[in-house]
Amino acid sequence: MKLRPVGVVKSEIKEPSLVVRSGDLAWRGVLEDVRKGQSAISEILVYDDFTGILDGIEGFSHILVLYWSHFTSEEGRSLIKVHPMGRKDLPKVGIFASCSPARPNPVCVSAVPLLERQGNLLKVRGLDAVDGSPVIDIKPYHPRYYGISEAKVASWMKQIGRELTKALDKE
Amino acid sequence: MKLRPVGVVKSEIKEPSLVVRSGDLAWRGVLEDVRKGQSAISEILVYDDFTGILDGIEGFSHILVLYWSHFTSEEGRSLIKVHPMGRKDLPKVGIFASCSPARPNPVCVSAVPLLERQGNLLKVRGLDAVDGSPVIDIKPYHPRYYGISEAKVASWMKQIGRELTKALDKE
Repeated sequence: MKLRPVGVVKSEIKEPSLVVRSGDLAWRGVLEDVRKGQSAISEILVYDDFTGILDGIEGFSHILVLYWSHFTSEEGRSLIKVHPMGRKDLPKVGIFASCSPARPNPVCVSAVPLLERQGNLLKVRGLDAVDGSPVIDIKPYHPRYYGISEAKVASWMKQIGRELTKALDKE
Repeated sequence: MKLRPVGVVKSEIKEPSLVVRSGDLAWRGVLEDVRKGQSAISEILVYDDFTGILDGIEGFSHILVLYWSHFTSEEGRSLIKVHPMGRKDLPKVGIFASCSPARPNPVCVSAVPLLERQGNLLKVRGLDAVDGSPVIDIKPYHPRYYGISEAKVASWMKQIGRELTKALDKE
């Protein structure tokens, strides 16, 4: 199972917020990058070999972007349990219960609004990919398949979300 | 970018509904498989090497499953534009505007309810993966990141959905 890059992300986010240190996650703590991840405009450049492969994407307001977390090392790919967001005050969870970009196959999935298409270039908002991330796939977002508004989320993940929102509001 | 299988899908669906024929998609037309894809219970067996990696997943009602569409040939990976669902009455669209499993990187993403976890085994409903599909990743589903209920879908995709629902109701 070998992936070929189909494009690349151009983003203001230059470094990952979550890094691997001594067999666990550590958060760099740059709130500005979290903000960018939530709202900044990124570009996705699809390589010329694939010209035409985006035709019809304009019919969708949102897309799924699959990209490779290229900062993830071999050590990052071997993690099994981590402190979520590197928070030592929370119990460790399995990588598959976390949103860590460091995972056995560091493929990230982002659902983002599609703002504009110009040929092989897409503009999207809120893509949490680091600049230079190889793009693996783009899919149309269909609420019937992906939109589960009533989904239950683990309490520790809700707590992290609440505290992050609070920290962002304070800044 | 090399993927390693982290598990395997056990499903009643034994063959893909969409296949590649003469440089286009063709639909095998087995409505029963569509029904299974929407509602049948599948199992995901995570390999022993990754024991512990699912810990905490029980806190979530839904998960994203990333799997490899292993029936996709090299020809399928080279398609650029296709008739959606193999429907010659509809204009061709780019692969990235379609849900075709045949794509440059045949990584499928399914959002499904998590019914049960027993150690390394997950039971889910409505996973559209064919039996034996290699599992690449499992992520917790968070409505804040993936739940966009008001997303706009292209008219041809809505048409296909309506007509498929009608055909299923008739059966």
